[in-house]
Amino acid sequence: MLALTILGNNSAIPAFERYPTAQVLQMQEDIFLIDCGEGTQMQMAKYKIRRSKISHIFISHLHGDHYFGLIGLLTSMSLLNRTQDLHLHAPAPLEKILQMQLEVASTTLCYKLLFHPLTAEGLILNEKKITVHCFKVLHRIECWGFLFRQKKKPRKIDSDRARIYEIPASFYERLQSGEDYVTKKGTIVPNSEVTIAAAPPKSYGYCADTIYDENLIEKIKGVDLLYHETTYLKGNEDKAAARFHSTTLQAATIAKKACVKKLLIGHFSARYEILDEFLTEACSIFENTDLALAGVSYRI
Amino acid sequence: MLALTILGNNSAIPAFERYPTAQVLQMQEDIFLIDCGEGTQMQMAKYKIRRSKISHIFISHLHGDHYFGLIGLLTSMSLLNRTQDLHLHAPAPLEKILQMQLEVASTTLCYKLLFHPLTAEGLILNEKKITVHCFKVLHRIECWGFLFRQKKKPRKIDSDRARIYEIPASFYERLQSGEDYVTKKGTIVPNSEVTIAAAPPKSYGYCADTIYDENLIEKIKGVDLLYHETTYLKGNEDKAAARFHSTTLQAATIAKKACVKKLLIGHFSARYEILDEFLTEACSIFENTDLALAGVSYRI
Repeated sequence: MLALTILGNNSAIPAFERYPTAQVLQMQEDIFLIDCGEGTQMQMAKYKIRRSKISHIFISHLHGDHYFGLIGLLTSMSLLNRTQDLHLHAPAPLEKILQMQLEVASTTLCYKLLFHPLTAEGLILNEKKITVHCFKVLHRIECWGFLFRQKKKPRKIDSDRARIYEIPASFYERLQSGEDYVTKKGTIVPNSEVTIAAAPPKSYGYCADTIYDENLIEKIKGVDLLYHETTYLKGNEDKAAARFHSTTLQAATIAKKACVKKLLIGHFSARYEILDEFLTEACSIFENTDLALAGVSYRI
Repeated sequence: MLALTILGNNSAIPAFERYPTAQVLQMQEDIFLIDCGEGTQMQMAKYKIRRSKISHIFISHLHGDHYFGLIGLLTSMSLLNRTQDLHLHAPAPLEKILQMQLEVASTTLCYKLLFHPLTAEGLILNEKKITVHCFKVLHRIECWGFLFRQKKKPRKIDSDRARIYEIPASFYERLQSGEDYVTKKGTIVPNSEVTIAAAPPKSYGYCADTIYDENLIEKIKGVDLLYHETTYLKGNEDKAAARFHSTTLQAATIAKKACVKKLLIGHFSARYEILDEFLTEACSIFENTDLALAGVSYRI
């Protein structure tokens, strides 16, 4: 199970009760937090996201609407006596800011915060069931996107059929990895006879804040879910470019060219109260699009 | 008109939809913001406080629940093209933190932010109609309280009566300041004959986060409104002392000993969902007590 829950979908200035960017990627075991705008911890309380389950935090860039809520969350975790390690993947200068904020408050976190500065594109996390890669995104300052990929799951053994062929349990692990079984008499039992393919691994691409950039296509090609910002409607293409942001049509074009399965759009400018047009415009190019709405969980 | 509006009344961990400390002191002309916990700008939007009207911000200390919302507010003001100067009175280390946060975002505020570090007790602001003094408060780290005092207002002239005594308009300013008038014939017209006393100037004392400390009494003696924290109920006196906080009974005792007119209590611990007992306990010692509740304006 992989699901993405939106906690904030607004751009720089909070407006119309929309909060700045924050998302949680929920897996069975734990939670990844992606960006952490001001008020993220309040949104977590509102939408019943368990802070204690967060194992890794990913910060795309150091514009405030993507990280001003982080220090509050980190200190609250400490006040709540968190014990397990917390991993923070973020642009390098963030470490010093956090250190200063803790220092002036005479605060020492009661858990271990492991800071992993983002330095080069590539694999940044390799867990049992998922990998995370970061990639560069073209924005006004250093900015990173993240690609989350579930690992291929082992095939499921059809134990009734495996018993018919008298396959010993000691061979099950090899069956799960796709191997055929050879009986004592030399007969080959094709793997597909005794196992069932697991659900295909899912993937999620998060493009953070970005100008329209076709270099992204290769990086998030074919993902099950793509999040691409749409700060502006199509009429504001000039404004979008000037501020290194994107429009609805641009996000949808990237989704289409990258052959992703589904597109989620967000980071809406405070100039828009009603969001309907964002969806209409994006769908005109890429139909399977949804608005990123706070509190909503999107199954991947 | 002087009114205090509460934006946040909770202690360190936001809980039960209660936000961390922030208050606005509203005068006719402009607004003073006192502390600025995370989410303050969202609370301002919710309670229709106009950000553009804020001229001075006072930060009591650098525990996050009193300032983590500041950088977001400052940058939003810039994105909204604020032009007028903004004065920030705060412990010195805050300046560097803000500078770093602006720097990593490649952001230059489009208005002038004037930083006034709090260094010694005394007068820190002397405006046309109000003065602000700061005073030291006993907390775990450097912490300041603030005393806001309206200046004495000029006496109001009863123009009908002034005309009877043929007092020239050129003397009116001296009448307003309380002077008697002497006619050409040498008759003294007592000031009280032709003027009415203005409403007495009001005062507000903000004690920030503090342990029970009788040194406070002298500093906020007789104020019209006193804000004193009550992180805990009376049963948690030990916990309060250990963390340099106060209980209901302690806050009410300070209010009583300082002969203030009204007491406002807040900074409630996240351990308490229902706040009724805070009021009951405080009122048992000092009757004219109110709970500081978000969105409520208390006339001073």
